[in-house]
Amino acid sequence: MLIVMQPQADEEKIQKVIDFIKQKGFDAHVSRGADHTVIGAVGRKVIDKRDIELLDGVKEVIRITSPYKLVSRVFKPQDTIIEVKGVKFGGGYIGMIAGPCTVETYDQMDITAEKLSKCGVKVLRGGAFKPRTSPYAFQGLGEEGLKILREVADKYDMAVTSEVMEVNQIPLFLKYVDILQVGARNMQNFNLLKSLGEIRKPVLLKRGLSATIEEWLMSAEYIMAGGNREVILCERGIRTFEHITRNTLDISAIPVVQKISHLPIVVDPSHATGLRDKVAPMSKAAVAAGADGLIIEVHHSPETALCDGAQSLYPEEFAELFEDLKTLARVVKKSF
Amino acid sequence: MLIVMQPQADEEKIQKVIDFIKQKGFDAHVSRGADHTVIGAVGRKVIDKRDIELLDGVKEVIRITSPYKLVSRVFKPQDTIIEVKGVKFGGGYIGMIAGPCTVETYDQMDITAEKLSKCGVKVLRGGAFKPRTSPYAFQGLGEEGLKILREVADKYDMAVTSEVMEVNQIPLFLKYVDILQVGARNMQNFNLLKSLGEIRKPVLLKRGLSATIEEWLMSAEYIMAGGNREVILCERGIRTFEHITRNTLDISAIPVVQKISHLPIVVDPSHATGLRDKVAPMSKAAVAAGADGLIIEVHHSPETALCDGAQSLYPEEFAELFEDLKTLARVVKKSF
Amino acid sequence: MLIVMQPQADEEKIQKVIDFIKQKGFDAHVSRGADHTVIGAVGRKVIDKRDIELLDGVKEVIRITSPYKLVSRVFKPQDTIIEVKGVKFGGGYIGMIAGPCTVETYDQMDITAEKLSKCGVKVLRGGAFKPRTSPYAFQGLGEEGLKILREVADKYDMAVTSEVMEVNQIPLFLKYVDILQVGARNMQNFNLLKSLGEIRKPVLLKRGLSATIEEWLMSAEYIMAGGNREVILCERGIRTFEHITRNTLDISAIPVVQKISHLPIVVDPSHATGLRDKVAPMSKAAVAAGADGLIIEVHHSPETALCDGAQSLYPEEFAELFEDLKTLARVVKKSF
Amino acid sequence: MLIVMQPQADEEKIQKVIDFIKQKGFDAHVSRGADHTVIGAVGRKVIDKRDIELLDGVKEVIRITSPYKLVSRVFKPQDTIIEVKGVKFGGGYIGMIAGPCTVETYDQMDITAEKLSKCGVKVLRGGAFKPRTSPYAFQGLGEEGLKILREVADKYDMAVTSEVMEVNQIPLFLKYVDILQVGARNMQNFNLLKSLGEIRKPVLLKRGLSATIEEWLMSAEYIMAGGNREVILCERGIRTFEHITRNTLDISAIPVVQKISHLPIVVDPSHATGLRDKVAPMSKAAVAAGADGLIIEVHHSPETALCDGAQSLYPEEFAELFEDLKTLARVVKKSF
Repeated sequence: MLIVMQPQADEEKIQKVIDFIKQKGFDAHVSRGADHTVIGAVGRKVIDKRDIELLDGVKEVIRITSPYKLVSRVFKPQDTIIEVKGVKFGGGYIGMIAGPCTVETYDQMDITAEKLSKCGVKVLRGGAFKPRTSPYAFQGLGEEGLKILREVADKYDMAVTSEVMEVNQIPLFLKYVDILQVGARNMQNFNLLKSLGEIRKPVLLKRGLSATIEEWLMSAEYIMAGGNREVILCERGIRTFEHITRNTLDISAIPVVQKISHLPIVVDPSHATGLRDKVAPMSKAAVAAGADGLIIEVHHSPETALCDGAQSLYPEEFAELFEDLKTLARVVKKSF
Repeated sequence: MLIVMQPQADEEKIQKVIDFIKQKGFDAHVSRGADHTVIGAVGRKVIDKRDIELLDGVKEVIRITSPYKLVSRVFKPQDTIIEVKGVKFGGGYIGMIAGPCTVETYDQMDITAEKLSKCGVKVLRGGAFKPRTSPYAFQGLGEEGLKILREVADKYDMAVTSEVMEVNQIPLFLKYVDILQVGARNMQNFNLLKSLGEIRKPVLLKRGLSATIEEWLMSAEYIMAGGNREVILCERGIRTFEHITRNTLDISAIPVVQKISHLPIVVDPSHATGLRDKVAPMSKAAVAAGADGLIIEVHHSPETALCDGAQSLYPEEFAELFEDLKTLARVVKKSF
Repeated sequence: MLIVMQPQADEEKIQKVIDFIKQKGFDAHVSRGADHTVIGAVGRKVIDKRDIELLDGVKEVIRITSPYKLVSRVFKPQDTIIEVKGVKFGGGYIGMIAGPCTVETYDQMDITAEKLSKCGVKVLRGGAFKPRTSPYAFQGLGEEGLKILREVADKYDMAVTSEVMEVNQIPLFLKYVDILQVGARNMQNFNLLKSLGEIRKPVLLKRGLSATIEEWLMSAEYIMAGGNREVILCERGIRTFEHITRNTLDISAIPVVQKISHLPIVVDPSHATGLRDKVAPMSKAAVAAGADGLIIEVHHSPETALCDGAQSLYPEEFAELFEDLKTLARVVKKSF
Repeated sequence: MLIVMQPQADEEKIQKVIDFIKQKGFDAHVSRGADHTVIGAVGRKVIDKRDIELLDGVKEVIRITSPYKLVSRVFKPQDTIIEVKGVKFGGGYIGMIAGPCTVETYDQMDITAEKLSKCGVKVLRGGAFKPRTSPYAFQGLGEEGLKILREVADKYDMAVTSEVMEVNQIPLFLKYVDILQVGARNMQNFNLLKSLGEIRKPVLLKRGLSATIEEWLMSAEYIMAGGNREVILCERGIRTFEHITRNTLDISAIPVVQKISHLPIVVDPSHATGLRDKVAPMSKAAVAAGADGLIIEVHHSPETALCDGAQSLYPEEFAELFEDLKTLARVVKKSF
C-alpha cells in the first residue's frame, strides 16, 4: 500500500501517518520526492484504505498488492484443466455444455438429450430451481427436476450441471449433479460460496450482472479458499445501457481472465444476448477469442418451452453451429 | 399484453399469432390500424414476451400490466406505516436508525448506544454477519455480535436491526433482532426473500447495486407474497461510473417509489457515499426529498473501527446533524 | 507518478524503466520495499501511463498529481462567485434560472417571463438551437429565437441563458445572451470549449450523460485554460439503468465538486428526472445538499409546449416551489 | 403510438385523450379490452410521448414505429457496400484500416505505411486533430498532419481516414482525406453530423461511449437525411464498470446492427480494449461474429508513440494477425 502525502503535509503529519499504520501492524518505508512524500506500508493485514485517506495531510492511498491469491497465475502459472466425463475445460481444450433452460418433463429432456448426445455433447444442462424476478413466475420442478436430469443423462452417458441457489440445497445437488452452477444473482452470496468451497465437485461460477472481473475472481477465491480447486468461470453478459440484447456479452473478459488467472472461462451466449439468432455469432466470437468452453441453451421445441424459449436453439441449429465451432477452434489452435 | 404486427404481416400470420396466444391461455382482441395490426392478449397467465416476438410477422410485444401487485398503491392506496419501539416509518413520519457498521465489542456498542440514545435514537444498527468481497476480510462476530447488540439495546430501551445473509440464520435473528436487513448483494437471493415472507417481523430490503426500481419492488413482492406485510425499502446507492463516491445515491428513487408503492423508503447515505463528510449533505437531501427514514453509521471512534470507519460519523457530528434534520423535516411537513 | 515493479523484477528491468522515464523528461526516485520496488517519476510532462505499464517487470503505474489545475481549490481556495443581473451563484448564494425548454413565440416567452419576473426570477432560460436525437424533430427557431429571448428579457429587466452548439454560433450568442450554455452532449466538444475559453461571458457547462466528475472538471479546465474564469457547472443527471426517471440526478456531485473546485455548481432537476412531479422534491434535495443554483423548466402551458412539456412546471407550481426553496435555503444557511 | 388507459379511466377521460391527439394531427383508433382501453394514434407527426402520459387516466404510451428510416433495412433491404481504393466494407467483404493513432512525423508515417502496404492494407489511418480529455495534452499536428498523411498514402497508393472534430474543419478534410471519421465524443454533435450529410465522401461514425444502438443509428440517420448515403458504423467499445479494459467492446452490436440496418459495421479493437495484447483476440472475435471491417492501430515503434502506444500493434504482430484473420474470414464465408 502506498500513501501519498499532500505537498503541504509537514513532518508532524507524516509522522502521525507512520504511527497509525505501524499500530495497525504494518512496516513503513518513507520516500521523499520533490512534490510528494510517499509512505510505503508493508504487511499482510487487511485494512480499509479510506481509514488512512481520512488522516490529516494524506492525499491518496493506493493498494498495490492484488486482492486474489489462489485464483491468480502468480499462485499457479499453468492452466487449470477441469475434466468431466472426458470433456476438458482449459489448457487448449474447449468444453461444450448444452441443454434446455429448465427441466420440464422426462420426455422433453429425453428428446433433447438424445439429439445433443448424437452431436457429441457430453455435458447436459437444465434448471431445476429457477431464480425468477417475479414470485408469480414458474420456479422450477425442484428435486423432481434434478432426478429427471440425472436419469436422462445416465441413459446417454452424459454428465449434468444445474444451478444451486442455497446452502441447504447442496446435499441434494451432490446426489444428482456433476457441476454445480452459481447464478449471476448469487455471485456474491458469500455463504453459498463458502459452502461450495467445502465440496469436491466442480463449480461453474457465473459473473454477476454488474460485477467487475476483480469482484468475480474474488468470489472464485472464496470457493478456492475453502479447498475446492475446481472452479469454472462463466461470462454470461453484463448489464449495460443497450436494450436490444438482454445483456452485453463481454468477450474481452476471456483474454483478460486468462492473463490474470489459471482458471478456465466459459461463455454463455444464450443468457447474454437473450435472442436465438445472436447465439451463433456470439458463440463463434467466443471461440475465436479463446474461450475454454461454451454453455448453450437448446430446446427440442423452443416455442413451447416454459422458460427462455426465445433464446434456445433448435437441435438442428445447434448441430450445425457445433460443427462450425469445431472448424473455428482448429483455426485458433484449440480443440473441443 | 399488446402484440404489434409488422406492416407487411398478412392474415395468415396474424391468425397464427392469435392461435398461439389462445393456446397459451389468453383471449385475443384484434385492432386493425392503418399501418399496424395490434393484437391485445388478455389473461392472467405469465408468459415470456420474447416467445411471441419470435413468431413470424410480429414486430414487438408490449407488456401493459404492472408486474407488482401487493407492493403497489393500486393494491393499497394508503401509506404503510411500520412502527418499531414507537418509531414510525412512513405516513409523514421519518424513522431514524443509527449505529456502527459492525458490532466489535460490548464496550464499543455500549458507548455508541448510550450517546445515540441521548440524542433520541430508538433503533440501533450493527452488523454481526458481514458480507465481504474478500474471504480474507473480517467476517463479523456472528451470534456473539447479535447477543451484544440485543443486550446493549435492551439496556437503553432500543430496538435493533442487523443483516441476515442466509435462510439458515433466520431463527437466530428472530431471537435477537427487531428488523431484519437484507443487503444489496442479496436483493435477488430469492430463497432468502421467500423465507422472510414467512416471518412476522419487519424486513429492511436494500436496493441492489445495479437494480432498477422495478426489480427492487419485485423483490419486496416476494416477501409480501409470503404474507409478511412489513417491508421497509432502503435506497443505499447504485453503481455508476462515478468513482469519487463509493456509489451514487439515487435520491429521485424516493418520490418515484412513493408514487408507485405504499411501502416506506429509507435512505442509507453512509454506504451510498462511503465518505464521512458527504453523509450530512446527503441526509439533508434525503429528508428534503421526502424520505421516510434514514439509516446512518455512527462510531464512537471511527479511526479504530474494524469496518467502514471512513464513512462513520462521530457521535457529536451525528447529534448536530439530527437536530438539523428535525428542522428540515418541519419545512417539508414531516416529523421524526 | 509512481511505478510499482513486480516482486520478481530484477535490477536490469528496474534500470530500463528508469532509463525510459528519464528519456521522457522525468526524474526518478527509487524506493526498495520488501515486496515491491517503487519508482517515483517526478516531472511536469504529460505521459500515457500505459506506455510504462507495458515495460517489462512493471506491475502498475499510478498517477498521483491531479489532472486539473485552474478549476481546483488548490489553485484558488475561495469560492468563485459569478454574478449576472445581481443574481449570484456560489459563495453562499443560490442563483435561480427558469424558463421554457424552447423559445416558441414572442407571446409564449412574454407570458412566462412576466410570471417568472413577478416571482423574483432574474435569469431567463430558453433554447433557440435544440440538440435533438432525431433529425426529424423540431430543431428550434435559431437566431429568431435568440432575438425573442433578448427582447422579452429586456422588457422585464432579466438576463438570459441559451445553449450554444457550435463554434460558428458563438458571435451570435455574444450578441444576445448573457450566459452561454454547453449541453451534456457537447461536454467533450473540445473545439467548442476552447473557443468559449476566449470569450468573456459566463459559461454554464452541463455534465455529460456518462461523464465522471473528473472528466467534467477537465472540460471546465479547457474553458479556464483559455482565460475565461467564469464557469458555472451544471449537474443534470447521469445515465443509469433506472428507466422511470429520464436520468439519475447525482445530488452527491454537489458536495463532491464543492470540495475539489471553487466553481459554483447548479442543478437541473427538469432534465434529470424528465417528470414534472419529481422537479419539486429534487429541487429541494439540491438546495438541502448545498447547491449554488437551480435551472428549472417552466412553461405557461406545458400541454401545448413544443418540447419537454412533460417536465415543465406550471408558473403557479414554480411560484410555490420557489417560496419553499427560500425557506429551505435559510435552514442550510444560504440565500437566493 | 399506442396509448394504454388505466383500468379505471372513464369515457370522459378517454375522449379527452382522443381530442388531444387529434388536435396534434393524429387519427385515433380505439380498442376496448377487458382491463384496458387502448387508443392507437396514427400519423406521421413527431410528438413527445410524455405529453400524453401526463393526461388524466393514461397509464402508458408506447411508440411502435421505428425512429429511423433511411438507415433501416425496411428502407433498403440489401447491404450497403462502401468501396474505397478497391477495399469493400459490407456485403460479405471485410475492409481493413490500419495505422498509428496520431500522425507524428513524415518518417513515422512513411515507415508504418510501407510496412502496412506490404501486408496488403489499402486504407491508412492517422489522427491530425486529437480530442484529448486534458487541455494540456498533445492536440495533434493539425493541417500539417493531414498533409503528411495524404503524401505518404499517395506514395503507397493508399486511401486515408482521419477524425474531423468540427464543422469548420470539413473543407480541409475534403482536400486531404478519403473517409472522414466522427469520434465517439462527437456522435451527438448534431451540427457536425448535418454538415457531413452535405458532403459526398464516406463517413465513419463511431459509437458514443454510452450510446445505445438506437441513438447511434439515429446519428447515422442525421448524415443520411442530408443526402450522404455512405456511412460506415464503427463499434469502439462502450463504457461499463469494468476497468481492466479501457472500454467494453460490444461484439453483439455486429449482428444486432446488421439485422436492423443495411450499413456496414466495422470494429475498433484498439480503442475498445486499450491494451495491445487484447487486440488480436478481439479482432478475431469481431471477424467471427461477422464484422464488415476492422480499424487497428499499428505503430512502428509503440514505445515512443506520442499517443496510445500501449494499444498499438508492432507491424510484425499486425502482419501475423492479418493472416490469421483472412483464414478466419473464410471459415465464416467472408473475405478481405
